[in-house]
Amino acid sequence: MAERKIKLTIAYDGTDYHGWQSQRNATTIEACLTEAIERLTGRQTRLYGSSRTDAGVHALGQVAHFSIDCPVPTERFRDALNKILPEAIAVLAVEEAPPDFDAIKGTVSKRYRYSLCTAAVRPVMQVRFCWHRPGRLNVEAMDKAARRLRGRHDFRSFASAADTRASSVRTILDCTVRGEGDWVHVEVEADGFLYNMVRNIVGTLVEIGRGRWAWNRIETILAARDRTVAGPLAPASGLCLMEIHYAPQSGAGTDGSA
Amino acid sequence: MAERKIKLTIAYDGTDYHGWQSQRNATTIEACLTEAIERLTGRQTRLYGSSRTDAGVHALGQVAHFSIDCPVPTERFRDALNKILPEAIAVLAVEEAPPDFDAIKGTVSKRYRYSLCTAAVRPVMQVRFCWHRPGRLNVEAMDKAARRLRGRHDFRSFASAADTRASSVRTILDCTVRGEGDWVHVEVEADGFLYNMVRNIVGTLVEIGRGRWAWNRIETILAARDRTVAGPLAPASGLCLMEIHYAPQSGAGTDGSA
Repeated sequence: MAERKIKLTIAYDGTDYHGWQSQRNATTIEACLTEAIERLTGRQTRLYGSSRTDAGVHALGQVAHFSIDCPVPTERFRDALNKILPEAIAVLAVEEAPPDFDAIKGTVSKRYRYSLCTAAVRPVMQVRFCWHRPGRLNVEAMDKAARRLRGRHDFRSFASAADTRASSVRTILDCTVRGEGDWVHVEVEADGFLYNMVRNIVGTLVEIGRGRWAWNRIETILAARDRTVAGPLAPASGLCLMEIHYAPQSGAGTDGSA
Repeated sequence: MAERKIKLTIAYDGTDYHGWQSQRNATTIEACLTEAIERLTGRQTRLYGSSRTDAGVHALGQVAHFSIDCPVPTERFRDALNKILPEAIAVLAVEEAPPDFDAIKGTVSKRYRYSLCTAAVRPVMQVRFCWHRPGRLNVEAMDKAARRLRGRHDFRSFASAADTRASSVRTILDCTVRGEGDWVHVEVEADGFLYNMVRNIVGTLVEIGRGRWAWNRIETILAARDRTVAGPLAPASGLCLMEIHYAPQSGAGTDGSA
């Protein structure tokens, strides 16, 4: 029987998980999903997730695919998966995708949001989904610096040492900072990300926001291609994978919405 | 030395706690706060909380008081408490209150909010703070029934059997239901609540919202003074204590805000 490609759009609260990717002796999002799919289909399954989010990082639009040799009733399959998944993980959409769909290789761009709460007291209902960092930030300066990162650049200064990929050149399509009461949200969309890239960008923007550096210091940091000149790594809790974009011909739905 | 009354306004994610009140062999909000206060002041402390919220119930405006025989630097004390409290609990305000302030006896009214999410898929970032119940609800009918509960009534039909208080007459000052996209919020303010009263009201309103009962069935239920005729108990996760009101002369701040 012909194999089918099934595309999943997934949301999770990553707080209590060791990231996306399966590891020995650690609970991961991928492992929970794979187990749920195998339980429902009775087939051994290999899941391919577009983003290997780190421990503590969240998602509202992760995309993954798997192949299976039987039809899958997509909406009922979604609800059945959600019944057996832990509360912190939810499948937003199950779609049958074209045979050439690949959740990893087909990715055109990814969008992340990083949320900071600057209130004096932590917000107990959102504390799992933010970096609580009391004290005012100069959002205007942060936004000016953020916009300077747009375009095709070598982002080596924002890649953690563990990144061993040959090229650190990426294209940032959007990078903005906006304030909303006590909250500051950093949005970054790029054609790909180096290891810890968003969290290193946010850590740098916060140094600018709190006045330690002028906004245009970002140019020196970018040009240096040296991780040690950028700001500290921002905590995982504030980071959320929002959307993954695919080329229109690839995949049934392309906007990651349910 | 003269004793001082200290008023605390407190927020918490109650998901992982066995409610407010201290119990043997169970982690409670009261126990965490008492331990933190004792650690900072070096004094044995008895904390009086206005609402003994149940296991899994949240708060954004719980109020408690304690007495102490030394001055407390209020804002620094708040920040010091928040540093040692678990992330799920935060002290919003510490105020020195008049000697006659009593967080329990001085309560004029309390306001609760109950939140339902009716989307097909659970919202992973809000799942700890709602009742996820897929399927449309008739918000208009629910609101009509809710408003019918306003005023002074015998609410025995909405009190769980465990409630042994002599009188079940209370005054509901406000009871409304509003829809907001996939969300339905029930707000109830009263001069006092019977055991599980808000959750029993919500369980009843949901039976009306899903069309099992007409809205005016609420009158029959109220008149029956019999718990078995009302709807089922709504889950704790959707309930949040929003505000506690005190008479203007009692307590330094009266609106529970920071």
